[in-house]
Amino acid sequence: MEINMKRLQRRFYEMASIGSTENEGVHRLALSDQDKIARDTFIDWSKQAGFLVRIDDFGNIYVRKEGTASKKPIVIGSHLDTVPKGGKYDGSLGVLAGFEILESLLEIEPLETPVEVVVFTNEEGARFPNPMLGSGAISGVFSKQHVYDMVDDDGITFESELERIGYKGDKANRLKEFEAFFELHIEQGPVLEQQGLPIGLVKGIQGLSWHTVQFTGESDHAGTTPISYRRDPMQSAAKAIMRIGEWVENLGDETLVTFGKISSLPNTINVIPSEVTFSMDIRHPNKKVLLRRIETAKTLIREVALEDDTQSLCEDLSLMLPVLFDESLIDLLQSSCQQHGIGYHEMFSGAGHDAMYMNNLGPTVMLFSPSVNGKSHCEEEETSWEDIEKSVKVLGESVVRLASSVR
Amino acid sequence: MEINMKRLQRRFYEMASIGSTENEGVHRLALSDQDKIARDTFIDWSKQAGFLVRIDDFGNIYVRKEGTASKKPIVIGSHLDTVPKGGKYDGSLGVLAGFEILESLLEIEPLETPVEVVVFTNEEGARFPNPMLGSGAISGVFSKQHVYDMVDDDGITFESELERIGYKGDKANRLKEFEAFFELHIEQGPVLEQQGLPIGLVKGIQGLSWHTVQFTGESDHAGTTPISYRRDPMQSAAKAIMRIGEWVENLGDETLVTFGKISSLPNTINVIPSEVTFSMDIRHPNKKVLLRRIETAKTLIREVALEDDTQSLCEDLSLMLPVLFDESLIDLLQSSCQQHGIGYHEMFSGAGHDAMYMNNLGPTVMLFSPSVNGKSHCEEEETSWEDIEKSVKVLGESVVRLASSVR
Repeated sequence: MEINMKRLQRRFYEMASIGSTENEGVHRLALSDQDKIARDTFIDWSKQAGFLVRIDDFGNIYVRKEGTASKKPIVIGSHLDTVPKGGKYDGSLGVLAGFEILESLLEIEPLETPVEVVVFTNEEGARFPNPMLGSGAISGVFSKQHVYDMVDDDGITFESELERIGYKGDKANRLKEFEAFFELHIEQGPVLEQQGLPIGLVKGIQGLSWHTVQFTGESDHAGTTPISYRRDPMQSAAKAIMRIGEWVENLGDETLVTFGKISSLPNTINVIPSEVTFSMDIRHPNKKVLLRRIETAKTLIREVALEDDTQSLCEDLSLMLPVLFDESLIDLLQSSCQQHGIGYHEMFSGAGHDAMYMNNLGPTVMLFSPSVNGKSHCEEEETSWEDIEKSVKVLGESVVRLASSVR
Repeated sequence: MEINMKRLQRRFYEMASIGSTENEGVHRLALSDQDKIARDTFIDWSKQAGFLVRIDDFGNIYVRKEGTASKKPIVIGSHLDTVPKGGKYDGSLGVLAGFEILESLLEIEPLETPVEVVVFTNEEGARFPNPMLGSGAISGVFSKQHVYDMVDDDGITFESELERIGYKGDKANRLKEFEAFFELHIEQGPVLEQQGLPIGLVKGIQGLSWHTVQFTGESDHAGTTPISYRRDPMQSAAKAIMRIGEWVENLGDETLVTFGKISSLPNTINVIPSEVTFSMDIRHPNKKVLLRRIETAKTLIREVALEDDTQSLCEDLSLMLPVLFDESLIDLLQSSCQQHGIGYHEMFSGAGHDAMYMNNLGPTVMLFSPSVNGKSHCEEEETSWEDIEKSVKVLGESVVRLASSVR
C-alpha cells in the first residue's frame, strides 16, 4: 500500500483553514460553527470516496470502508476540535492520517476486515468541561444525561448545540467493538525531538494524581516579628516545593511533579502569610510506583510542617490510574517500524487521549509524531512532514498486516 | 509627680467605647463620625482640665499646658484613628498616657517648660492611603495639596471629610519646634513579652526595602515534559525564597525578610508556570547593613536563575532608610527606668510611627509597652495595665526631669 503524502497534505491544509487564526493556528471549539464546517467537509470527502458514514448520539462520526467478510473493524481515530487558538496538528493529524490510509486501501486488493476512521466529539474539553467526551461516552465513562446536560461558559447545553449543528445521530451507530483501535497524535512534549527519533510507540498513559497542599502558620507583622519567632507558611511551602522537586529530579525516572498554582493569604507585602496554598500534580506510568510517589510526597510535606512548626494539609483532588495499551499492537507497530528501518522510542503519554477510553472497549495503541520544540495547544504547534510520513507509513503498514492476520 | 492609673483607665475605656466592635476591638477610621466623637471627647476633657486646645490645617489636635517661661514645648503624642476592626491600644495608649501626664503635672509645682499632647490625623493609612499623614504633613514630607486631594475607597477627599467633621484648623497652629517629642506605643511584636521586660526603649525605626521578584521560565504541559527538560520558575521561586530565608535565619541578627505575596502564571494545575512573582520585604536598623542585605538577596536570586536556566527580575518598589532617635533622650528614659528599678529592652521599631516624622523636626524618642502574644491591628490586641503603669511612670518622670533641665 502506498501512502499519498500530497493528498494528505492537501486535505490537512484545507482542514487547517477552517477556523484558522491570524498566526496560522486553528480556533475550532467543539460543536461550534467552525466544527460543523470541519465535520461537513470531512463527510463530503468520505462520501466522494464512496465510504459509508454514520453518526452516533454524541456526534461521533464513523467513516467505514467495508471488508469482504463480516468481521470486527480495525479503527483509526482522533478528533477535529481544538483548544482556543490552538494548532493545526492536535487531533486533525490522527483523523486525516486515518482517512489517507482508508483512501490508500482503495488502491490495493480489498481486505476482509472492515476499516473505520472515527472523529470523536469534544476531545479537548475546552468548550464543554470533560475532555475526551465523545470517546468517554461510548465507552461507558460518562452517562448520556451527563453529556447532554453539560453546558459551556455561556450556559448552552451540549445537546442543544449537537442538534443545532445537525450532528445528533443514532445510538445504534456507536462503536461497540473492534479488532484494534489506533490513534496517531502529536507528542505535545520535547522527548522525540530531543532524542532525534521520528516515532513514539506509546505503551500507555501515565497515571495522574492531583492535590491541593496548604501550609498554615501565624500571620504577623513583617517589621515587628523577629525571624526566630515566626511560623511562616511561605517558608514551608518553598521548602516543600523545592524538596519534592529535588527528590523527583534525583529519582531520574519517569516520575513527574508539577506545582502550577500558588497563592497566599492575606497576600500583603508587609504581612507574614497565615496560609500558603499550592497545587501538586504527580504522574507515573506504573500504578504501584505512582501510589508510592504520592505517599512519599505527602511525607515530605508533613516533615516540613513538623520542622517549621506550621500545619500542613494535603487534599486529594483526583486520581487517574495508569492505562496500559495492548502489547501485541505495540509489537505490531514495532515490527512495522523495523521493517521500514524507521527509528522509534517507546514511551508513555503524559496527556489523556481518546485512545485512553477506547482501551476500555478493546485492544488499543497509540503512536506519536514529534512536536517541534515540544509545543502544543498553541498557534506555533508544528510537526515536520518528513516525520508525519514515517508515522502514516508505519500505521498503514500495521493496519494492513493486522487485517491480513485476522481470522 | 504621681500618675493616677484609675483616671487613665477610666478615660482609656471611655475612648475605647467610641467605635467599639462586638469582640471588644475598635473600628474608628480617620475623619469618620467615630473619629469626630473621639476628637470631641478628647477636647472636652482638655477644656475641662483648663488646657489650651488648637487645631492645625491637617486636623492635628494640640492640647497645651502652659509653662511659666517662654520655651519650646516638650511634646507627647500619638493618634486616635484605628485600622478596620483594630484594637483599643494602638495610638490611644500614647495619646491618653500623654494626657494623664498633663493632668498629673497640674498637681505639682508648675514647670517653666510648656508641655503639649498631640493627636495626629490618619496615622494608620487605613482610610486615606499614606500612613502617618498628619505628622508627615507638618514635617514637610507631604505637600498640603497631596494631603487634601487624597481620596478614600469611596472617592471622598481628605479635605472634604476634614471640613465635614469640623476639624480643618489653622496652618498657624502647626507644631513647628519642640524641646523633645515622646511617643509611647504598643510594641506590636512578641519581643518584650518573650523577654519578660515591661518597657522597650526604641533606638530608632528599621529601614525597609520592598521589591517584586519575578522568575520567568518555559510554560509546558505537566504530563509531557520530563523533569530534565523543564525550565520551571516555580522551582526557582521556591529555591530563592528558601535560600534567602535560611541565609537570614543563619545571620541571626536584626535582618528581617518576608515574602508576603506570591502568584503564578498561567496558574493552572497541569501546566508548568511561565512566570512566578513574589514580594520581598527586607528590613534592618542600620543603613549600610540594609543596603548590603538587599544586594546579597539580589545576588542569591540571580544565582538561582543561573542554576535553573530561568530568568530573574528584581524590581525595587520603595526604600525607607532607617531612622535613629535622639541619644540623649534614650539616655534620659534609661535613667528614669533605672531610678524606678524597671527593666527595659533596647530595640528598634519594625513599624512606622508618627515619631518617625517628628524626628525630622527635633529630638525624638519612643517607648514601647509589651503586646500580649505580639498581636496588634486586631480586636485581640492587648497590653497589661501593670506594664502600662510602668511606661507611663517612666515617661512622666522623664518629662519632668527634662523640663527641669531645660535652660
